[in-house]
Amino acid sequence: MNYCSRCGGKITTAIPAGDDRPRHCCAACGAIHYENPKMVVGCIPEWQNRILLCRRAIEPRYGKWTLPAGYLENGERVSEGAIRELYEEAGARSAAVLPYALYDLTFVNQIYFFFRAHLATCEFAAGQESLDVRLFDEDQIPWDELAFQVVSETLKRYFEDRRAGTFTFHTGQIRRPTF
Amino acid sequence: MNYCSRCGGKITTAIPAGDDRPRHCCAACGAIHYENPKMVVGCIPEWQNRILLCRRAIEPRYGKWTLPAGYLENGERVSEGAIRELYEEAGARSAAVLPYALYDLTFVNQIYFFFRAHLATCEFAAGQESLDVRLFDEDQIPWDELAFQVVSETLKRYFEDRRAGTFTFHTGQIRRPTF
Repeated sequence: MNYCSRCGGKITTAIPAGDDRPRHCCAACGAIHYENPKMVVGCIPEWQNRILLCRRAIEPRYGKWTLPAGYLENGERVSEGAIRELYEEAGARSAAVLPYALYDLTFVNQIYFFFRAHLATCEFAAGQESLDVRLFDEDQIPWDELAFQVVSETLKRYFEDRRAGTFTFHTGQIRRPTF
Repeated sequence: MNYCSRCGGKITTAIPAGDDRPRHCCAACGAIHYENPKMVVGCIPEWQNRILLCRRAIEPRYGKWTLPAGYLENGERVSEGAIRELYEEAGARSAAVLPYALYDLTFVNQIYFFFRAHLATCEFAAGQESLDVRLFDEDQIPWDELAFQVVSETLKRYFEDRRAGTFTFHTGQIRRPTF
């Protein structure tokens, strides 16, 4: 951040009075520009025990498989965001979603929030950001071809819960990948 | 948003290619400045069946009672933010917190996320943003003097769950207050 989005003045980094951490401050108009984590909302779409995954048509992780998810938009409920992403990326509809898991990704200032989603029908189709969309049985999940660790963690938990016969709300943390 | 925080150019509102909603765009450098909801994280601090509430020393709702909560910071886990706010606003410590509820406040682009928090000790003290901090039995909760609807909804649910003997994760929506 170089310039003040309110007045166009130069931005400096300083700890404002009464605060305890550095912020982007405008010396000209006094505005403080706070930066906060963003929420990524998604779902685990299920149809007759199979899971719907999308193959990414965009970077990062082009060609890898993922759960439909994306940034929550202003004016949108968390559940609405997950339902919108399911439709945008996988062309699928869900009437009701159930909160399932929250993951902290502090290294990218993101919070992932996943719902369980039973599909309303068996219809689906690749959206603009997907190369392909397919239903997978548990033993067909392409574990080595999943796009992100948050996706593999979420799916692992999901299948564990499903085998145990009881779904509970999970929280977890994903750390910066080390290659 | 009037000026581009990257190059200082004038901001216009337009729907970028491949997008479906208006964004703040810079005609000079091409930057798109997305705006997304912010997370407010807090907890329901409990000590021997009593709930710790803070009386607000700041606007809005100066003098009203609230649960400790505030904006999640970059680099912080959701649970860490709730524990930090508990200490900053109420001078209290909790070793472990359990996810309890998520509320959508789309009219202010906020997501509230509350944890249940058992206090580590009975120590507490008003922080900079609190006039007073006190423990309340359920029948002493100042329902008519609570600061926000999200606080009264959360507490109502909490006492219902406690009476039922089982806490489950809740989601809900708070609509714009009408006076």
